[in-house]
Amino acid sequence: MTSRSAPDRLLSVLAAFDHAHPALTLTDISRRAGLTLTTAHRLVGELARWGALERDASGTYHVGLRLWELAALAPRGPALRQVALPYLEDLYEATHENVQLAVRDGGEVVYTEWLSGRSSVGVHIRVGARWPLHATGVGLALLAHGDPGFQEEYCAGPLASFTPYTITEPELLRRTLAEVRRSGVAVSDRQVTPDALSVAAPVRGPDGTVTAAVSVVVPHSGARVPALTPALRLAARGISRALGWHPPTPVPAEDT
Amino acid sequence: MTSRSAPDRLLSVLAAFDHAHPALTLTDISRRAGLTLTTAHRLVGELARWGALERDASGTYHVGLRLWELAALAPRGPALRQVALPYLEDLYEATHENVQLAVRDGGEVVYTEWLSGRSSVGVHIRVGARWPLHATGVGLALLAHGDPGFQEEYCAGPLASFTPYTITEPELLRRTLAEVRRSGVAVSDRQVTPDALSVAAPVRGPDGTVTAAVSVVVPHSGARVPALTPALRLAARGISRALGWHPPTPVPAEDT
Repeated sequence: MTSRSAPDRLLSVLAAFDHAHPALTLTDISRRAGLTLTTAHRLVGELARWGALERDASGTYHVGLRLWELAALAPRGPALRQVALPYLEDLYEATHENVQLAVRDGGEVVYTEWLSGRSSVGVHIRVGARWPLHATGVGLALLAHGDPGFQEEYCAGPLASFTPYTITEPELLRRTLAEVRRSGVAVSDRQVTPDALSVAAPVRGPDGTVTAAVSVVVPHSGARVPALTPALRLAARGISRALGWHPPTPVPAEDT
Repeated sequence: MTSRSAPDRLLSVLAAFDHAHPALTLTDISRRAGLTLTTAHRLVGELARWGALERDASGTYHVGLRLWELAALAPRGPALRQVALPYLEDLYEATHENVQLAVRDGGEVVYTEWLSGRSSVGVHIRVGARWPLHATGVGLALLAHGDPGFQEEYCAGPLASFTPYTITEPELLRRTLAEVRRSGVAVSDRQVTPDALSVAAPVRGPDGTVTAAVSVVVPHSGARVPALTPALRLAARGISRALGWHPPTPVPAEDT
């Protein structure tokens, strides 16, 4: 334990907190971080003084407001969200369905925003949730426009299965990605859960690189993909423009 | 510099980032954190490996996605926001004005959510922004329901002035807080900027303690406070119930 660096020990205290463990006692933290109780006590004290952790009346520790204020500066998190939010709101008002914004981190999508349609299909995606690229609409949109070398590596698998509809065959995934590039939207039909369908479109940054994806999740039963497609393209183009992207001239085939 | 603890040095690297400085070079970080370039380089490297910082193509550092995922666990930040969001959306759809959610941190409010009405008054409140309690509607709502000792200490001043309408007299502030408790809503009329008015209502946690406030900001000119008041009360009660609060029986006078 003494061979661990001081930053590593401090970060291990923060890493003890996750979605399954949002509230921890000092003993929990010491155990999960692999630190002695004395060391954990000292580091938790430093983090609490700084505001990275907060202690409630029962002595339990939570992630603090200061860390959240700092994290608000993350360009791929809240900063992107802030630019995208008016377009996501419009998409929500137009569809009254679950609306999501996501970015790629390695082989996963990370949801950075979702507006929940309370009367729509019950998808339980929390902000900060992760999901493999090949299962979700946003993941397929991000993968289809990713670096070709990375795409090939990802397609080679293994590709985890979540429902009988999840794409697990490399060749089918490659064909699906080509179709996503051709049509301008990605559809995940019951590939995550047996009752949900999502339609996603890629969001581009100033240099045209796809940096995020926006999607709508609806119940599979009765889903009308052709009716959702223009709205998704419109929202994605709106966010892209707001991020500084300028559409190429002539207008690309996907928009005709 | 050698007398600073290792956690203190690491946290000083994170603290180098703020809203005025969301993107920093290694030299910037070293200067702002008061560290040698060698130490800054080592600590930035540890933070980047962990995902707390991200380096872009130009070599500039930003706050990373991992820190944002961790911060999503903060109960007074995103967790509160997630419970409140459907009610904030409804309030936005009902008014199409700027809708905000805030919590108290010492003598300031911290905005933890805002939905922006694009056609409404141009208030530039970013998520994570801070403002003194006595100027804003949410601040007045939080202060009016705070610990009496804290209230008295805050009212004694000094009370910073932002416009000719900002309350800077302790006795006027005390009377205003009493009126907020009586009416169930707080109104800030041109006390922050000369063109904006906000109406705010307190949000209660499971034990009845006021833990947050919700508000709508509208242009001062033409603002109809009586028309906004029931919507604000409704939204605040909805969020409070969703947080586990049960209204006392009989119905309190403020709701008759």
